[in-house]
Amino acid sequence: MKRFLLTLEYEGTAYSGWQRQLHQNSVQEELERALFTATRVHTPVTGASRTDAGVHALGQRAHFDTNANIPEDKWPYVLNTHLPPDIRVSDCRRVGETFHARFSARRKAYEYRIYNRRHHSALLRNFAAFVPLPLDEEKMSRALLPLLGTHDFAAFQASGGTAKTTVRTIFKAAVTRQGDDLTLLIEGDAFLYNMVRIIAGTLIGVGQGKLDADVFERAIQTRDRLALGVTAPACGLTLRRVWYEDEL
Amino acid sequence: MKRFLLTLEYEGTAYSGWQRQLHQNSVQEELERALFTATRVHTPVTGASRTDAGVHALGQRAHFDTNANIPEDKWPYVLNTHLPPDIRVSDCRRVGETFHARFSARRKAYEYRIYNRRHHSALLRNFAAFVPLPLDEEKMSRALLPLLGTHDFAAFQASGGTAKTTVRTIFKAAVTRQGDDLTLLIEGDAFLYNMVRIIAGTLIGVGQGKLDADVFERAIQTRDRLALGVTAPACGLTLRRVWYEDEL
Repeated sequence: MKRFLLTLEYEGTAYSGWQRQLHQNSVQEELERALFTATRVHTPVTGASRTDAGVHALGQRAHFDTNANIPEDKWPYVLNTHLPPDIRVSDCRRVGETFHARFSARRKAYEYRIYNRRHHSALLRNFAAFVPLPLDEEKMSRALLPLLGTHDFAAFQASGGTAKTTVRTIFKAAVTRQGDDLTLLIEGDAFLYNMVRIIAGTLIGVGQGKLDADVFERAIQTRDRLALGVTAPACGLTLRRVWYEDEL
Repeated sequence: MKRFLLTLEYEGTAYSGWQRQLHQNSVQEELERALFTATRVHTPVTGASRTDAGVHALGQRAHFDTNANIPEDKWPYVLNTHLPPDIRVSDCRRVGETFHARFSARRKAYEYRIYNRRHHSALLRNFAAFVPLPLDEEKMSRALLPLLGTHDFAAFQASGGTAKTTVRTIFKAAVTRQGDDLTLLIEGDAFLYNMVRIIAGTLIGVGQGKLDADVFERAIQTRDRLALGVTAPACGLTLRRVWYEDEL
């Protein structure tokens, strides 16, 4: 058996998320179906991140094992033939048998987009949260600073999270504005369940002046989910990149 | 009767184009339906540009006449309530009764996006033409220069064009690259039927080295459509902006 690592791009709008679920359409299932069509062998795939329904990916990663005699650079062509156009394999490389798409991941980058205008955008409706009230992006930038570094982010997860430890390291957290389009870029060693969407929802509250600028600091101290704002909508979130040891 | 001018944003993917057509879904029809729902009066709208099926708009303009007692700044809210999410009214202002969305237009800007990578993009699949072979954007930029100024663009229209004159003035034509994403931005006083898509398709040929860099110059001289390349796919095209006299 050979193990291959795929890089995947998808629009999450039509899917119930990454993970296979009974009677629902998932990215994982589409990928396993394409692998079956290509190899005639049932081939489970393991993703780096279990993105939620409506969440997009530019650089999801996933591994699978196969005996098929297809070289690594041919897999994207083979799989893209069988995948729907809202899922594309952009890259493939062979990895060792102990490599694991999820457990070997060392760093992840997420992007959260906010459309900040009086009326929503027809073109960004599936790719950004819509916030009609003005947002102060300088205040938002300052509010993000306490997130940097290693902290116990127990307050920053939705119920249903199954992480053994809630300590995470955040390397980058910044918000930029281009016209009406705000983007939160956040990089960390790993993220808790709904962590980026909770940060984005809280950040919107700060930008609107509804939440204090020290809200993240207090939530880290108190470990209380209620110290934070609402979970921002899934459609604004995109998994941009996953790094492994040899890619850092 | 009062005349109002709307600014519209839409994703063209689900529509047969701007113009109302029997048994087909058009942006114009959706807008007229929303106006009827809001005012209970059949209210025809006139668009600045009759965009094709699959073509998008960030700044389409359209006027309509009404007796309804709704102030100009309220129309976007009223209409967006009744419009599908892939069509949004972003602005409205009152205009004089001799104003005409199409005939009063003085300048239009279109954008054509090209995704230039080995595998297509899941996120841009409805917003960019896909070109897997490398494109030389410097060669493309130089090739565009002969388009600037006032010329007879008879070669630059699809059959079915009904323009009385084929003389047009191009103010800007430039291509820029951001990573794998190439954008052609073109501004002119008006465009012939399929003109931007013919320019984009030809430009792709130049970028791939399949067409000579002086292809636009020769087509202007010969007025021969066959001197140019294929018409690029509709999905890459976006009507960015329409200007009227008082907005220049």
